[in-house]
Amino acid sequence: SNGNTTHHPLERLKVIAQEQGLDLTDRRFAEYMDSIDPIRHLREDFCYPKMKDLPKTDLQLVDPEEDCVYFCGNSLGLCPKKFKEYMLLEVNKWEKTGVEGHTSGDLPWAWFDEDFCEDMGKIVGAKKEEVAVMNGLTVNLHLQLISFYRPTPTRYKIMIESKAFPSDHYAVESQIEFHGYDPKTAMIEIEPRKGELLLRAEDILAKIEEEGDSIAVICLSGTQYYTGQVFDIPTITEAGHKKGCYVGWDLAHAAGNVELKLNEWGVDFACWCTYKYLNSGAGCMAGFFLHEKHKNNNFPKLKGWWGHKLDTRFKMDNKWSADTGALQYRISNAPGFLGPSIKASLEIFNKTSMKEIRAKSLLLTSYLEALILNKYGQPNEQQENGEVKGKVKENGQNGEVKEKVKENGQNGEVKEKVKENGQNGEDWKHVHVDILSPSDPTQRGAQLSLSFSVPILHVFEELTKRGVVCDERKPNVIRVAPAPLYCSFLDVYRGVNYLDQSVQSAARIS
Amino acid sequence: SNGNTTHHPLERLKVIAQEQGLDLTDRRFAEYMDSIDPIRHLREDFCYPKMKDLPKTDLQLVDPEEDCVYFCGNSLGLCPKKFKEYMLLEVNKWEKTGVEGHTSGDLPWAWFDEDFCEDMGKIVGAKKEEVAVMNGLTVNLHLQLISFYRPTPTRYKIMIESKAFPSDHYAVESQIEFHGYDPKTAMIEIEPRKGELLLRAEDILAKIEEEGDSIAVICLSGTQYYTGQVFDIPTITEAGHKKGCYVGWDLAHAAGNVELKLNEWGVDFACWCTYKYLNSGAGCMAGFFLHEKHKNNNFPKLKGWWGHKLDTRFKMDNKWSADTGALQYRISNAPGFLGPSIKASLEIFNKTSMKEIRAKSLLLTSYLEALILNKYGQPNEQQENGEVKGKVKENGQNGEVKEKVKENGQNGEVKEKVKENGQNGEDWKHVHVDILSPSDPTQRGAQLSLSFSVPILHVFEELTKRGVVCDERKPNVIRVAPAPLYCSFLDVYRGVNYLDQSVQSAARIS
Ligand SMILES: Cc1ncc(COP(=O)(O)O)c(C=O)c1O
Ligand SMILES: Cc1ncc(COP(=O)(O)O)c(C=O)c1O
Repeated sequence: SNGNTTHHPLERLKVIAQEQGLDLTDRRFAEYMDSIDPIRHLREDFCYPKMKDLPKTDLQLVDPEEDCVYFCGNSLGLCPKKFKEYMLLEVNKWEKTGVEGHTSGDLPWAWFDEDFCEDMGKIVGAKKEEVAVMNGLTVNLHLQLISFYRPTPTRYKIMIESKAFPSDHYAVESQIEFHGYDPKTAMIEIEPRKGELLLRAEDILAKIEEEGDSIAVICLSGTQYYTGQVFDIPTITEAGHKKGCYVGWDLAHAAGNVELKLNEWGVDFACWCTYKYLNSGAGCMAGFFLHEKHKNNNFPKLKGWWGHKLDTRFKMDNKWSADTGALQYRISNAPGFLGPSIKASLEIFNKTSMKEIRAKSLLLTSYLEALILNKYGQPNEQQENGEVKGKVKENGQNGEVKEKVKENGQNGEVKEKVKENGQNGEDWKHVHVDILSPSDPTQRGAQLSLSFSVPILHVFEELTKRGVVCDERKPNVIRVAPAPLYCSFLDVYRGVNYLDQSVQSAARIS
Repeated sequence: SNGNTTHHPLERLKVIAQEQGLDLTDRRFAEYMDSIDPIRHLREDFCYPKMKDLPKTDLQLVDPEEDCVYFCGNSLGLCPKKFKEYMLLEVNKWEKTGVEGHTSGDLPWAWFDEDFCEDMGKIVGAKKEEVAVMNGLTVNLHLQLISFYRPTPTRYKIMIESKAFPSDHYAVESQIEFHGYDPKTAMIEIEPRKGELLLRAEDILAKIEEEGDSIAVICLSGTQYYTGQVFDIPTITEAGHKKGCYVGWDLAHAAGNVELKLNEWGVDFACWCTYKYLNSGAGCMAGFFLHEKHKNNNFPKLKGWWGHKLDTRFKMDNKWSADTGALQYRISNAPGFLGPSIKASLEIFNKTSMKEIRAKSLLLTSYLEALILNKYGQPNEQQENGEVKGKVKENGQNGEVKEKVKENGQNGEVKEKVKENGQNGEDWKHVHVDILSPSDPTQRGAQLSLSFSVPILHVFEELTKRGVVCDERKPNVIRVAPAPLYCSFLDVYRGVNYLDQSVQSAARIS
């Protein structure tokens, strides 16, 4: 019964397809998968944009009334339907009662953020007291480094990924400089092997073993923003601890995407944003995790009145009395108008669980991968996972998808595509689409990072015209992420058709 | 023609009263003052709460349909009417287009904050490049101290007020500790003289002269939150500079309240919140000022990707390239849903000027002071300003207001009051109301801080029942602030009547 987690999700997809007498590339397979998806109804809790509402859709190419294909939840999640209602409650409260809103209504501005900690904790596997919701991600990372990065002449290094997200890179670099060390020697940037894009767990562990005694803090991302690679947080955390390092995680792309057990794994600190898989809107308040073992720490901290215990906070006697756990790291009072989206978002997460979300995500992204590979061939050459490669080969006869697409064309759905194929029927043969993300599903989340033999900006433009919302990251990838809370198997099916059209079109332009 | 600024505003009020043949304590005087107020129409740009909308109003005591008396703009400003409209634009944008909202619409989430810098700069007397809008106030203060507080064995102190706002106190204390110094010796808390509540400029300057050589940073509030005292920013800044100190200001209670010329005064850094006199909602993004002389500094900084120049920010090559001026201190991306209130608020400020706002404020608060003194006697004994004291004595015959109130009672407006007076007609004689704020109008902003011979919590409760919105600050004051953008002279008139009722009532309870 727990067999699903040990088998490749593609196996499961194929078993279902076989049971239903359907081909994996058949639209009806996508429809069937949606019909048995236990969290399919959660899509209804989101505002899923329509083709006609996106500013750059070419309405000659797609049906204006159709839903777009939203593959951008890794960048900015969709808007929960309840958001507007909850926002209006707060707006009306301010309009009608001014300062009274601090202590009244649905989200009393003076303490609403505390009410999020428990639910937010569930998403990352943390206890309520270990979580605060505040500031932006990088601000929180700085606050954590101020506490955990206390370099000494013998232990002064911070280990990050060589391709860490720029903000993390700058945060770490500036903290090192702040303490008077030189990033050239104090910042260990762990790199993929020559010619590879993914980091190997063994290399990370070897580096920790090698340099651990001089490392003060290991600070990696739980899920790599560029490649979508998921790191083995418990193993790396343990290895770091064995060497006496603190280990903290940037979970921007991990929170709400993969299962996390921050408390159980003994992670020292972590931060994440809420605008990606947590669907709380651009730049919304970020998550902050401090393990309970550090709850009474006397590390250096940048203090502010909001980190002071509530019951004596307004005594104004300037005698510091720290709030419990993570909350003591709060500095400024919380932005009341950022509460409504978080509330709306957490309510949706409360209807399911990360386990259930992840189970769907594994199937959904493997389905996406299978359709792409089926069309464009093999996974990234770096990846030597024979099993997966085998499966795909078995399954993927390039001709198949082409036929299916034609079939769709006859349904009036992707007319343009057929026309294009008619004109340039053989172009796809000359175009490569590579998947940079790990082929091992346990080593990735929802996202697949794609690179192309044609200029990505052209592909991206063509996708945009067809209402496939995704993002392009320098130097060379398009990230597509079917977020399991609101994306369906049919979205993936449609998305791959549009991707195919776009690639063909880009090939013609280029 | 510039005589108004050199004379006490009470003089001006009295001249007008005399010209109109009205007594200062006559309701018609308030009405006349409103009729000649050049910015009276701006009240219409705000949602001014009604008595019936405030949760704790006793509708037996006041007319439910009447506007409340909002004297709490020093704590949380009122909601601009345009806020809801602008908010709904952003909500709809997210609903309909997801991530597209970053670069489209009225407030593109990726850069809307930059568009506020110029208008925000006007309010504090700063150039556009000197201003950023981000984070919370205390977070900004920390970011500035990280840059400006670089203690050495000979220059390691920070000078603050002994009664600094708690958050500033904790910020400074924790920064000192962070650098390994002891707040006991490194934190100079400048205190009022024994038995006094206000700081004397001469004492501040003497302290700077005395300790300046060992002071790294002077960090005071432009307007003291508890007493409402306005400090002489240019003189203190200059004195600090002469001693080689950096001088920074917490302008939480000064921005939008008094005229500021941060650039001209050579202030090194400053921060302020936008939820008080800037009417942008609880915990909204705060102001950050960095003088242009520091725009290319290489001080230590806590960096993040949002401080990187926009044109190369998304190159993701992890090579730092600082944005201009204050903007390089940005860390995380900006919260899109905090933009609408700031936009709505700045539009109102753009219809007037700080000069015009302050001109009204001087009259409005002097009027409030005059009515209180008229009823309850003398200003705070500490204050030796003979001129003001004299004027008030001249003007204030306690009996007068009482009669006026009765007159009002006959208009059916403040019935309860008359009843109370009827029952306890002489109680006021035993009650003292003291004004702690400076009697010199140039040394205060909109706010007057009141203390009472009866328990303030009782007074506060009674005021609340009567829809007078103000706040109570431990240990012992009620702060009342008629914000000039939306408060009228009639509000002040009504507010003082309700204050009188409340004090009487509190005296009966006590
Ligand atoms: C003078 C002063 N400084 C700082 C603050 C706190 O700022 P925040 O919570 O916005 O950081 C306040 C809040 O009322 C204040 O009055
Ligand atoms: C991995 C990662 N870390 C950090 C950030 C930036 O965070 P913020 O601007 O919220 O501080 C992002 C944003 O996309 C990210 O993907």
